Amino acid sequence: MLDPTYPPDAKYLEDLKVGDRFCSGSLQLDAAQIKAFAQHFDPQVFHLDETVAEHTFFRGLAASGWHTAAITMRLLVTSDMKLAGGVIGAGVELNWPAPTRPGDTLRVESEIVEITPSQSKPDRGIIKIHCKTVNQDGLVVQKMFAKLVVRRRQAA
Amino acid sequence: MLDPTYPPDAKYLEDLKVGDRFCSGSLQLDAAQIKAFAQHFDPQVFHLDETVAEHTFFRGLAASGWHTAAITMRLLVTSDMKLAGGVIGAGVELNWPAPTRPGDTLRVESEIVEITPSQSKPDRGIIKIHCKTVNQDGLVVQKMFAKLVVRRRQAA
Repeated sequence: MLDPTYPPDAKYLEDLKVGDRFCSGSLQLDAAQIKAFAQHFDPQVFHLDETVAEHTFFRGLAASGWHTAAITMRLLVTSDMKLAGGVIGAGVELNWPAPTRPGDTLRVESEIVEITPSQSKPDRGIIKIHCKTVNQDGLVVQKMFAKLVVRRRQAA
Repeated sequence: MLDPTYPPDAKYLEDLKVGDRFCSGSLQLDAAQIKAFAQHFDPQVFHLDETVAEHTFFRGLAASGWHTAAITMRLLVTSDMKLAGGVIGAGVELNWPAPTRPGDTLRVESEIVEITPSQSKPDRGIIKIHCKTVNQDGLVVQKMFAKLVVRRRQAA
């Protein structure tokens, strides 16, 4: 079986350059989804109960930062980035400047900021992308730098 | 209504010191959970189909890194850390040295590596914790440094 993560239109390391930008679709989330994610992965009251959340740090129901991160990944994977081999993270740095709220519609803006061919593995390299996850008002709810493994079209 | 994120046994900034360690319970995940998470948040074949995954980068079904991160959060929130105000992330750095596989049982070992009282906000500070998520064989599947907002018992 051929590896299906290399479709004909996949982008290899040679096809990418610093400054390349990618756009995602958008995804709206509601209170029920925020609570369902939190019940599984981040069971704290500010992610679970609107009324109680009013009296906490977040002053209202807020999505778990990990929910925002997971939605960001969905938007990245289904964006026009389409990397050969798939979107495979080697490591990330992220922060959440503002909470995601019920009814928010998120999208992700990404830009390549660094490309580093591997010294030891001639068939691949690492790209560093800067991803901003923004809501319908343009407010940034997550900033991330992600290092991704990308295949070379030809071994160096 | 009182903020329920301050139970009587909650730990405030003054109660913590560098070197404090916290232990989590453990959580096992199966192939169905790996696929369900991936369908929602990371729909790539190596997270969705055992047979096809054999021919990809991961050489078998692997959990999304974001699934490992979300499970880590669940284990942290339900651990003996119990911070006043809740577990509130200001920012994180993480990487995944090895994939999480179906049947793995994960637990999280955490240690405080830095405590910084806020200069501008006398009611709080930031602690930096180092969290290792390990499987049943002691293999580290995620390393994370997380900055968390923690309340002071008394304003500085």
